[in-house]
Amino acid sequence: MEVANSVYYGIQTQRAIDNFQLSRNKLCNYPELIKALVLVKAACAKANNKQKLLDDKKYDAIIFATQAIIDGEFDKYFSVDMIQGGAGTSCNMNMNEVIANVGLEYMGLKKGQYSFLHPNSHVNMSQSTNDVYPTAIRLAIHLKQTHLLDALSSLVNAFGEKSHEFKDIQKLARTQLQDAVPMTLGQEFNSFSSTLRQEVTLLNSMSELLMSINLGGTAVGTGITTKQGYSKLAIKALADLTSIEFKPVDDFFDASSDMGALVTYSSALKRLALKLSKISNDLRLLSMGPRGGISEIKLPNRQPGSSIMPGKVNPVIPEAVSQCAYQVVGLDLAISMAAEAGQLQLNAMEPLIAVNLLESMNLLTNAIVMLKTLCVDDIEANESRCRDNLNNSLAMVTALNPVLGYEVCTQITKEALQNGGSILEQVIGKKLLTRQQLHSILNTNNIVQPIP
Amino acid sequence: MEVANSVYYGIQTQRAIDNFQLSRNKLCNYPELIKALVLVKAACAKANNKQKLLDDKKYDAIIFATQAIIDGEFDKYFSVDMIQGGAGTSCNMNMNEVIANVGLEYMGLKKGQYSFLHPNSHVNMSQSTNDVYPTAIRLAIHLKQTHLLDALSSLVNAFGEKSHEFKDIQKLARTQLQDAVPMTLGQEFNSFSSTLRQEVTLLNSMSELLMSINLGGTAVGTGITTKQGYSKLAIKALADLTSIEFKPVDDFFDASSDMGALVTYSSALKRLALKLSKISNDLRLLSMGPRGGISEIKLPNRQPGSSIMPGKVNPVIPEAVSQCAYQVVGLDLAISMAAEAGQLQLNAMEPLIAVNLLESMNLLTNAIVMLKTLCVDDIEANESRCRDNLNNSLAMVTALNPVLGYEVCTQITKEALQNGGSILEQVIGKKLLTRQQLHSILNTNNIVQPIP
Amino acid sequence: MEVANSVYYGIQTQRAIDNFQLSRNKLCNYPELIKALVLVKAACAKANNKQKLLDDKKYDAIIFATQAIIDGEFDKYFSVDMIQGGAGTSCNMNMNEVIANVGLEYMGLKKGQYSFLHPNSHVNMSQSTNDVYPTAIRLAIHLKQTHLLDALSSLVNAFGEKSHEFKDIQKLARTQLQDAVPMTLGQEFNSFSSTLRQEVTLLNSMSELLMSINLGGTAVGTGITTKQGYSKLAIKALADLTSIEFKPVDDFFDASSDMGALVTYSSALKRLALKLSKISNDLRLLSMGPRGGISEIKLPNRQPGSSIMPGKVNPVIPEAVSQCAYQVVGLDLAISMAAEAGQLQLNAMEPLIAVNLLESMNLLTNAIVMLKTLCVDDIEANESRCRDNLNNSLAMVTALNPVLGYEVCTQITKEALQNGGSILEQVIGKKLLTRQQLHSILNTNNIVQPIP
Amino acid sequence: MEVANSVYYGIQTQRAIDNFQLSRNKLCNYPELIKALVLVKAACAKANNKQKLLDDKKYDAIIFATQAIIDGEFDKYFSVDMIQGGAGTSCNMNMNEVIANVGLEYMGLKKGQYSFLHPNSHVNMSQSTNDVYPTAIRLAIHLKQTHLLDALSSLVNAFGEKSHEFKDIQKLARTQLQDAVPMTLGQEFNSFSSTLRQEVTLLNSMSELLMSINLGGTAVGTGITTKQGYSKLAIKALADLTSIEFKPVDDFFDASSDMGALVTYSSALKRLALKLSKISNDLRLLSMGPRGGISEIKLPNRQPGSSIMPGKVNPVIPEAVSQCAYQVVGLDLAISMAAEAGQLQLNAMEPLIAVNLLESMNLLTNAIVMLKTLCVDDIEANESRCRDNLNNSLAMVTALNPVLGYEVCTQITKEALQNGGSILEQVIGKKLLTRQQLHSILNTNNIVQPIP
Repeated sequence: MEVANSVYYGIQTQRAIDNFQLSRNKLCNYPELIKALVLVKAACAKANNKQKLLDDKKYDAIIFATQAIIDGEFDKYFSVDMIQGGAGTSCNMNMNEVIANVGLEYMGLKKGQYSFLHPNSHVNMSQSTNDVYPTAIRLAIHLKQTHLLDALSSLVNAFGEKSHEFKDIQKLARTQLQDAVPMTLGQEFNSFSSTLRQEVTLLNSMSELLMSINLGGTAVGTGITTKQGYSKLAIKALADLTSIEFKPVDDFFDASSDMGALVTYSSALKRLALKLSKISNDLRLLSMGPRGGISEIKLPNRQPGSSIMPGKVNPVIPEAVSQCAYQVVGLDLAISMAAEAGQLQLNAMEPLIAVNLLESMNLLTNAIVMLKTLCVDDIEANESRCRDNLNNSLAMVTALNPVLGYEVCTQITKEALQNGGSILEQVIGKKLLTRQQLHSILNTNNIVQPIP
Repeated sequence: MEVANSVYYGIQTQRAIDNFQLSRNKLCNYPELIKALVLVKAACAKANNKQKLLDDKKYDAIIFATQAIIDGEFDKYFSVDMIQGGAGTSCNMNMNEVIANVGLEYMGLKKGQYSFLHPNSHVNMSQSTNDVYPTAIRLAIHLKQTHLLDALSSLVNAFGEKSHEFKDIQKLARTQLQDAVPMTLGQEFNSFSSTLRQEVTLLNSMSELLMSINLGGTAVGTGITTKQGYSKLAIKALADLTSIEFKPVDDFFDASSDMGALVTYSSALKRLALKLSKISNDLRLLSMGPRGGISEIKLPNRQPGSSIMPGKVNPVIPEAVSQCAYQVVGLDLAISMAAEAGQLQLNAMEPLIAVNLLESMNLLTNAIVMLKTLCVDDIEANESRCRDNLNNSLAMVTALNPVLGYEVCTQITKEALQNGGSILEQVIGKKLLTRQQLHSILNTNNIVQPIP
Repeated sequence: MEVANSVYYGIQTQRAIDNFQLSRNKLCNYPELIKALVLVKAACAKANNKQKLLDDKKYDAIIFATQAIIDGEFDKYFSVDMIQGGAGTSCNMNMNEVIANVGLEYMGLKKGQYSFLHPNSHVNMSQSTNDVYPTAIRLAIHLKQTHLLDALSSLVNAFGEKSHEFKDIQKLARTQLQDAVPMTLGQEFNSFSSTLRQEVTLLNSMSELLMSINLGGTAVGTGITTKQGYSKLAIKALADLTSIEFKPVDDFFDASSDMGALVTYSSALKRLALKLSKISNDLRLLSMGPRGGISEIKLPNRQPGSSIMPGKVNPVIPEAVSQCAYQVVGLDLAISMAAEAGQLQLNAMEPLIAVNLLESMNLLTNAIVMLKTLCVDDIEANESRCRDNLNNSLAMVTALNPVLGYEVCTQITKEALQNGGSILEQVIGKKLLTRQQLHSILNTNNIVQPIP
Repeated sequence: MEVANSVYYGIQTQRAIDNFQLSRNKLCNYPELIKALVLVKAACAKANNKQKLLDDKKYDAIIFATQAIIDGEFDKYFSVDMIQGGAGTSCNMNMNEVIANVGLEYMGLKKGQYSFLHPNSHVNMSQSTNDVYPTAIRLAIHLKQTHLLDALSSLVNAFGEKSHEFKDIQKLARTQLQDAVPMTLGQEFNSFSSTLRQEVTLLNSMSELLMSINLGGTAVGTGITTKQGYSKLAIKALADLTSIEFKPVDDFFDASSDMGALVTYSSALKRLALKLSKISNDLRLLSMGPRGGISEIKLPNRQPGSSIMPGKVNPVIPEAVSQCAYQVVGLDLAISMAAEAGQLQLNAMEPLIAVNLLESMNLLTNAIVMLKTLCVDDIEANESRCRDNLNNSLAMVTALNPVLGYEVCTQITKEALQNGGSILEQVIGKKLLTRQQLHSILNTNNIVQPIP
């Protein structure tokens, strides 16, 4: 088998490209993973050089190559399918070969003159796919998380601003889709903001699990081929290069087969997805209409809603968010199954876990940005509908509970429902309370917070 | 290890009881599976007797025992946990031992005198758990399906009756929760009826896959320990006993490890669950209110809805249906994972598949009966809300599309939305059509079916 | 908002492109869906023309455009994200606009002169996204299924050929990963072949569910905007164009919100995925080694297996198959959640269902082709290991069951295990049977099939 | 409707019992949830008494009742189905009614004389199901977690002891089921121990999320019916009663609809399940045999493995563990779907979440205890097989990498594979290294850890 002279990858990458024609989804679609692999290679080279196993000339060539790749000059040579057999070996070898060839040219040699800089013996020195790839995935997630959290924080703020804008609008709270008690639209939007703020915290906390890395464990955790002290040096070098506080895993053996930290991170993404979908559903429920539904808020028009129904506008943005959310839940399941499929000293299914995590982060980031900029920012309250829905309801009866008791209140409500009247009319008609007493109890401020 | 003299199971059952203290969910909770195992044992005994391998005396004792068990006298001795290691061996041995001991007493002997009627050598003659258990599961599903389909058909009819009751009530159809076009409430309820009618058909069709059985394949499909012709005789005997057209599987080797037919049946249950949840959600949406929502139907009150909000009534029945549906989806996933975990000549995880299928059938049957009797039967239409929601909407504009074109109709709709008016006012005000033309186009019957 | 003059889509497509920047996965990645949409449009135009609603000139222009698109000239203008809000409206409008603009140029007019050929009023005449898109998805699956079944049938044959090649190789069957009874390697590979042959049948049968279409139901099933008879004409026209026996759904109302048929088809894909993963796991188990495992078969080397362990060869092809399988299970879950999320007269989440079905079909087709050509075709038996593993085992004891009874056989086995001997030695040593009797029972042919 | 005089629940419980005949799984199956509900009631009563809203007499009666219930005297009256509509109202009312009736008898009154102690007005004072039920679930999980963590820690220790016992046994490490490099059996078992130790940490950390409670938020978070300061008092009282550091949630509105913390806890259970299944699979792989597999460890016999194959012993314990694990994954999915289904101010599907969490904890606890006591404790190493599998392999070639380079080592391995020889013979035969050099490199201690 031959490899074209023009390309910077080598024979092992070529074989992997030929073997895995599965998903159209290539390594080059995930720049954070390329960058992460490069930084791991640089860190290992540094440790090897320090341990006098890699001479300065080769070390310089490797470092030059890693920088050039980070600069984006060689992206198109990372062409292996993200779904691949072999626990990531093809990704690792793709990187080893490109670094070797870029490095060889830097050394004034030709691509393929591997005796001077060998993809395995030198670039991959003291390394195995089984420590390099898991480490790189963790780093890639850290890199990608920055974008996700930026987007998420903006959405938290957007909901927060709406909450402030809507703080004085009283409305009907609904439990089980049935009229419940009074609240403000500001409280409702604030709950969107605060529930998502918790996700920022959780993701940050979960990503700490990703700071424990097994660099130096090589094939199965014994550290075979490495020289004592290498692991510490390599992990330190990576921490320096990335400003992330990487530290060694508790157990290097467990680390090459266990996907626990990735499963947990995926669970955190799933939780975020579920929350986004719930919020999106709420936005669709609240904007149901424009006339035949509760219509308490108005989402901005983004595109004609129908090919047949003129003038129809649909909540397409929240609908798309929910679909992204379902996809994340599905990808999380695939990750779980892949995690369970680890056997003995390795989990060969790690590539699926990697691509699904990164893709879920893409989908969530994009969905969040879309939801914020194309929907939430321009939501308007329909104040009169909020007021009418509340006033026509029997929601204030609960506030009379402490005064009249549950049984009397139940009776009042049933009668009001039957005769179509209001709680006020019912209470006053029955002389249970004076109008003044009632007004004092149902005072606007009292009714949406504890009794003073 | 000793077994109490009072019990009818033996040492192997006792060991299984001791080993698997997992789910509290015992074999005796699934009478259809007990009956199915018994019938398989009877069929095998018949084939063995016909092949002169089992003498008449032992045969009679076995047949006596199977009948006694079917009569329910020994239910409490089927005590192994439904979740168990060993691909169902403990269920099979529990049955073998109870049959042997009941049979021994029938023969005038004592429990445990196995040399006269041995659980393995005689009751289990020509059999392996690996053909008995998969066959019994299929039969148990057939038995249980009768109840499920009865319940489902009743629900289909209940929705059909409501559809008839509501056939003249025009209302607003909604797509993406937004006002769309006119339809009748009868059409809406008829769609619930017809979508579930398809499930009756599908389940019947999927259960045909469960008529292919591997009885006679024994341990791995070679039929080891059986005499030529046994498989046909045993399958014929089971078909005779059950009036179900059982037939041999295409490949006996595949059959002891492959869970395909069970996976497919579970998928059909999942599909039914998803439909039930969608319908339940619709019932909740349509009854949203009583005042602050669209409130186009009224669900019957079944219990006070809240411990704090007096007079509140919640759609608890549809809510419980959705929860059962989610559970079925979850159990289906567990089945899928168990199915994937087959290895070489067997799937050791089959007990989980069995219990989850039977439990899903329980949940669905119960949820359907509940939905029909405690909810659908007593649903009332809120005709005035249906009419008002439709009349206030702009839904009839679509009917003008063929006459005025999409762009003009879009313009009309936007203006009506802005100035709060109706499509009629807009069209007549702009002299696009005469009142008479409009009425002819928007004729009640035309608007909910194709143009004559 | 302006659209570049060079492109063939219009303003609605542009808005959708801008709105949905989610998955990188565009309509143009799914040529079958483009073709399907085109054919639906052509069929509808034919019906409209027959009903004298669409004049010949416009009809000719539409037909010209559909043919040009099928010829692949305009692929790059189908640029909307496959994940989109709005139940497929953006896909439908993308198609309507490209057809209109290509048609306009054919009519000698300029792109955008929609009064002569309007994307909605003419190209989408008598149609709604809610009948066009579900119909197109069904057709796209039919088109794609051809490739999937071709690949699958080839794999069935490949396993069949190996089965023939290995038919005389006796080996140890294993249940629960423990030594069980004798069988042949041919029987084992034949079970792979026959289990997958069932999938061909099932997929064909499931795809029949996809022949019921709701064309003519338009927005919600009432057929609003269509003229009586249109639905039949359009469905007939589509059947003629595709040679697929499309027929009307039972209930047009149910059809725009219910995803049942797609859920069922996805379940069938999932079942196929689970089987492929089980088979792949078996191939990996059987080839475990090369020295420290059972090593009964040898998979072809496809690429160096490790960046650190020289000469290591890994079962990368089956590993990649399992990953594709897990992904299909994950996508199926997302489909289930999307199906459950239908509300009232529509399921807005259908785009996710569409893309996941098509993507699962891609993954499965590619994985199957890979498995066949890069693995199964070149599998070799390790005959001596098969023989040794069998001969060293105690597997033939089961064949003595009918002669010596279960208890005696159990005793023999225990003793053989303890003293490290063979069943033969044990039986002869104890004078339970003569050597001749034994040989007759354990005759090669007897031991892997029923006793004559 | 009448309630039998003998029972301690009331009319609302009776209605719930009648309405929800779904899962056979009753509240009384979950003593931790009963205890948790009782403690919440007691805490609320304390706060109400402190705020002078509940007089001492009623308060004493309530406290007496809660203690009596904790003592287990009334377990059988908690009879509502765990799957129920209404977000837990039926559980809450079941508790309110039993407390009221027990309290009434304590007061010298009769059951049902609610004007003296009313289930809603007094027992449920200042409470809503929507704050009581979520709080009780969190507390129940805390109570149950103690058992789970005890079991898990024992298993961690059991693996640790085995690791110590096996520390000197060298064996073949396998990646992707292929022979890889040397390691010790002690290292392998230690990785089981350490991977599970991480779960103890994670569960502890995740359960901290469950210390934030919304007691005092009542129906939707506004705290309607409560008097200012109540929430703090009630939460403080609960913390005092339980010695758990409960604190108020960040946002009381979010808290009644968001299931985030429960989703996260379920994810942690799922992760534990996946790890247990992976370990169980490993135990089955390592004990594959007894003769026709790698057989490096021996699991204890727990029951005859087969109804047909005499003397066969199966790894039933690990098989049952995996089934429990799949069930937990399935229940987690049902939880995720239920969590997504929250609408507006409430999640009505919380009962399914509650029962699935508690059931997953049951299953995991039971599976772990079983795995430890019936399997791990009695695992024996098969030292000779470990040694043989290692020595026959080519695993030590990787250790020569740093000396001979990847390409030379690859060549040696290929030749050894072809001619059936060993790496040693190959290296010495080719005079690449002297026997002494080799021995120094392949020194027992060097080969399973970094090079000194």
